[in-house]
Amino acid sequence: MHWRNYFIPTTKETPKDATAASHVLMLRAGLIRQLAAGVYTYLPLGFRCLRKVERIVREEMDRAGAIELRMPCLTPLSLWDESGRSRTMTDVLLRLDGAVWDWAAGLVLGPTHEEIITELARAYLKSYKQLPINLYQIQLKFRGEARPKSGVLRTREFLMKDAYSFHDCKPSLDKEYDNMYAAYCRIFARSGLPYLAVEADTGAMGGDASHEFMVLTDAGEDRVAVSANGDYAANLERATAAPPREGEAPAEPPREVHTPNAGRIDEVCPVLGLPPRQMIKTLIYTATEGPAAAGAARNLAPGAGNVAPGAGNVAADPRVGRGAPRKLRIVALVRGDHEINELKLNRAAGLTLELADPETIEALTGAKVGFAGPQGLIDRIDKLIIDREVAVLRNAASGANKTDYHVTGVNPGRDFPLSGDKVVVADIRTVAEGDPSPTGSGSPLHLRTAIEVGHVFKLGTKYSAALGAVYLDQNGKACPLIMGCYGIGLNRILAAAIEAHHDDAGIIWPMSIAPFEVLVLALDPRDEEVMRVATQIHDELAAAGIDVLFDDRDERAGFKFKDADLIGIPLRVVVGKKSLTAGGVEVTERGKEGKPIMSPASVVEQTVRRVREELAKLAR
Amino acid sequence: MHWRNYFIPTTKETPKDATAASHVLMLRAGLIRQLAAGVYTYLPLGFRCLRKVERIVREEMDRAGAIELRMPCLTPLSLWDESGRSRTMTDVLLRLDGAVWDWAAGLVLGPTHEEIITELARAYLKSYKQLPINLYQIQLKFRGEARPKSGVLRTREFLMKDAYSFHDCKPSLDKEYDNMYAAYCRIFARSGLPYLAVEADTGAMGGDASHEFMVLTDAGEDRVAVSANGDYAANLERATAAPPREGEAPAEPPREVHTPNAGRIDEVCPVLGLPPRQMIKTLIYTATEGPAAAGAARNLAPGAGNVAPGAGNVAADPRVGRGAPRKLRIVALVRGDHEINELKLNRAAGLTLELADPETIEALTGAKVGFAGPQGLIDRIDKLIIDREVAVLRNAASGANKTDYHVTGVNPGRDFPLSGDKVVVADIRTVAEGDPSPTGSGSPLHLRTAIEVGHVFKLGTKYSAALGAVYLDQNGKACPLIMGCYGIGLNRILAAAIEAHHDDAGIIWPMSIAPFEVLVLALDPRDEEVMRVATQIHDELAAAGIDVLFDDRDERAGFKFKDADLIGIPLRVVVGKKSLTAGGVEVTERGKEGKPIMSPASVVEQTVRRVREELAKLAR
Repeated sequence: MHWRNYFIPTTKETPKDATAASHVLMLRAGLIRQLAAGVYTYLPLGFRCLRKVERIVREEMDRAGAIELRMPCLTPLSLWDESGRSRTMTDVLLRLDGAVWDWAAGLVLGPTHEEIITELARAYLKSYKQLPINLYQIQLKFRGEARPKSGVLRTREFLMKDAYSFHDCKPSLDKEYDNMYAAYCRIFARSGLPYLAVEADTGAMGGDASHEFMVLTDAGEDRVAVSANGDYAANLERATAAPPREGEAPAEPPREVHTPNAGRIDEVCPVLGLPPRQMIKTLIYTATEGPAAAGAARNLAPGAGNVAPGAGNVAADPRVGRGAPRKLRIVALVRGDHEINELKLNRAAGLTLELADPETIEALTGAKVGFAGPQGLIDRIDKLIIDREVAVLRNAASGANKTDYHVTGVNPGRDFPLSGDKVVVADIRTVAEGDPSPTGSGSPLHLRTAIEVGHVFKLGTKYSAALGAVYLDQNGKACPLIMGCYGIGLNRILAAAIEAHHDDAGIIWPMSIAPFEVLVLALDPRDEEVMRVATQIHDELAAAGIDVLFDDRDERAGFKFKDADLIGIPLRVVVGKKSLTAGGVEVTERGKEGKPIMSPASVVEQTVRRVREELAKLAR
Repeated sequence: MHWRNYFIPTTKETPKDATAASHVLMLRAGLIRQLAAGVYTYLPLGFRCLRKVERIVREEMDRAGAIELRMPCLTPLSLWDESGRSRTMTDVLLRLDGAVWDWAAGLVLGPTHEEIITELARAYLKSYKQLPINLYQIQLKFRGEARPKSGVLRTREFLMKDAYSFHDCKPSLDKEYDNMYAAYCRIFARSGLPYLAVEADTGAMGGDASHEFMVLTDAGEDRVAVSANGDYAANLERATAAPPREGEAPAEPPREVHTPNAGRIDEVCPVLGLPPRQMIKTLIYTATEGPAAAGAARNLAPGAGNVAPGAGNVAADPRVGRGAPRKLRIVALVRGDHEINELKLNRAAGLTLELADPETIEALTGAKVGFAGPQGLIDRIDKLIIDREVAVLRNAASGANKTDYHVTGVNPGRDFPLSGDKVVVADIRTVAEGDPSPTGSGSPLHLRTAIEVGHVFKLGTKYSAALGAVYLDQNGKACPLIMGCYGIGLNRILAAAIEAHHDDAGIIWPMSIAPFEVLVLALDPRDEEVMRVATQIHDELAAAGIDVLFDDRDERAGFKFKDADLIGIPLRVVVGKKSLTAGGVEVTERGKEGKPIMSPASVVEQTVRRVREELAKLAR
């Protein structure tokens, strides 16, 4: 490809809101152009990268035995009604306007395709003999993303690979889950990503396994906990630390302390002379009777939507709202230096909890907000959920259930129960920097930000049950299909690769997803000999099947080198008068030192070998 | 690929409304599944075909020097406002609902991308040095199709290849137009389509050349006129016949005839004893002063939207509606046996005409509808547009401008003017079956229905002028970019191929776009030797790079043969006990006679050769 006839609008200007390196560099290198907020055109160079990613994904999915099809973007609202997600995902589903055509109001742009594939399975998968099967597509998705940001990382239109597997038993799902997990590892490795598979939350309705594939970078919006020795990695929502050890100090008697206007941990600690880790935070929640519907909360989890096929978004339970539901009161306890994790809390409660309003709190505790404590509450509430770190405290402090008073010498088991019908002791907090790994190694956990590029999820029968997608088993019994789903955000692979591989001058593409593998740069295109040699090298590389770009532009050398650094083609063959006189051409690798001179006669062969070597290394 | 592990849901059932062969067979062969009206899932087999078409299109576009990029489906309404098409294409543009998010109401699903590419050109193409350039994409399109029908022929979501070229002069556009025309010929030939390039209407605003690529079939919705000797082909909207010869009969005097309640041609002819070809139909139109905006009419042209990148839809002229526009009265005359062609009429008028209401007609003619004639009207109207076939009539009949009366002996030039400021003589009728070709050969035109699969169009500066996309020429002068646009409907290529190649038993795929090139059919999969031989043939074909499907299902032979005929894989290798005993395997070609027996040792080599031969034939 001749640069002169191609279209690579590199630029020095980037909008002020572009802060992520991938965003800045994709704009500067002429890979993308913003058409509307969160909506991008892939310019020729960016499109080539996207196609390469698409090809890797397709090859590995095919190799793993998944079968490709293509579902539409326009999807019937009625299917979203069947699953209940037309109610829980209102802020995500982009609906069409029905002003001109009535029928348009019945259509939704698919943000994911569980409902659509489940309808398809309902129509065709009738017998256990047709199982297992894994169907996938590479297709556009649309999301009502409130705040698009970071270039292609969080957008309203994006390209996703979504796969859905169907099974007649759990072991079959487990096997395909492992198969997909392995395929994902190959996909991300081949794409040159330094990825990490982390345990992810499975939702309160109990999908039983879920992993996210993360690329650690400051530009990410996901948070993960990774142990220093690498023996543990989990999404922060899910991460857990090693269980605490029992406190050993002798129990002191409780003592009420006047703490006027000191309702917050940071206000009361100095007054009591205690560190936050000796405090008990008492949080009051309400809930409506009935099982949890964690979906609503999860829908808002940042970033999840662009790669996970909506896995966590469960159908609203049809039982909710039947009869006259009772308002429940739940109290949760975490240590003063810990953050409560509401996903864990909901799972421990088996309910979807909401923070109580001040009136409810005051009515329950008899004190203003900020002075609640667990003492004496058990008979007046429906559930007490105690973080396991609180359960081992000795001589802690909490609110006194009396405005402007706290109690010290609070001891679990004595001052509030650790067992009984209403009591749950569980891990309900978010892990903190330095917590020990739960593996037993004790290696400290570090909290990092990351880009989620993939997600595998054992869905179970959520969607098949909701939509009535059943098969007949060997005994002729109708059973809901057991499902798994597996998503990859293709655009995010590009952005994550750039985040991981760039320097001040520009992008350093992994060979496998680079728009071109080799750049032949003619230093002085007006020199006949330079052009003859450069053209020949370009043509021979192209004939050898190498993706080669030929910078034949009549521009200054410095300008061309800057562009070359910016667009980041891995290998560069520079043909100039000076080096030709010295008997050769200069070959450099983007991001590496050294400019060996090779003879024009051998450069093609050596370059081809180097490209293949690099691709093989990534595919290993 | 093993059929046993694949997903080909063939069926005998098709919905009642499926009448087109392609629609019926795509459903029966398990290629597609309807998800909503005009919205289809491509099942694995159909998706493979679509990918093959996509690959042919991409290869030929790349070979022709066009540069691929990818624009989004979500497009800003503001750009459609700039071009004026948010007003003229209201029934086509699918807008998002703004109920949850305000910003969503500002987005439109692109039915074509002229506005988007022109905005891109406005941003990047600043100098004549960057021209010419041809940018293309293969991307989904969305249309507010009122009546989706015929399977994937007329849908609300479809896959289109749309290319847009930019030039600094007319000869450059002409050259690229020819280049694209040639690329299209290669694309359709390679896809195995018996296509025909026909002249198409260029719209009243005067794009100056346009061709549609048609596949003649009864399932089509387009109408074309094709001369018997093949020297002429045009879209019926555009087609013209050889000019008429002057009538020679001596002029008779006009005579008023009482024709009570006989206002229609078929009513009055028997009364007058004249054939319809001696009648003059007098049609009264109104228009608002200002140039034509043929777009509104063209938007409704059936079928056009799925392949043409909206070429004919011109921007509403901004001058329309300024000041106090006068209502114009226009009279058009065509022969009683001819149909008026409103596109031609509008072009002749230089206006967008609308049929007048009965009140206007009666006020103008002094007679009820059905009794209008051209005599004596010229001073009361703004324009008289006479079809050239009417201009040569002698002793014709027309309405008498008097209720229940006609006039015979009407002679053009004597009874109404053939020249003057207000008079236009032009071809304003639709050609009829048997009309002589306009080439001079006199070969009779035949009217046929067809599927439009592609469209090339010289746009000129319509969009660049409307959006202010200008470049600086060699003298530093800002000029609007000169544009061409080129569309192909990928889904339609599949449907058209099936329409052209099928029999009662099913599809007969051209080798190039068949989901698989070879089907290996094991007649008795429980027989070890049969399976050994069949598996070996399958594996060797696959290793040779052949797309091969292996029917290893444990089903009856008749069932498998029926499925094989239905899905239409071009080559079939049948491995059975009987033929093995006879020393070989049976090789058949779908749609052809003969079942030669080949030795298992040579069948792979011969099959590979046959596949390559066929592909080469199509690519010739």
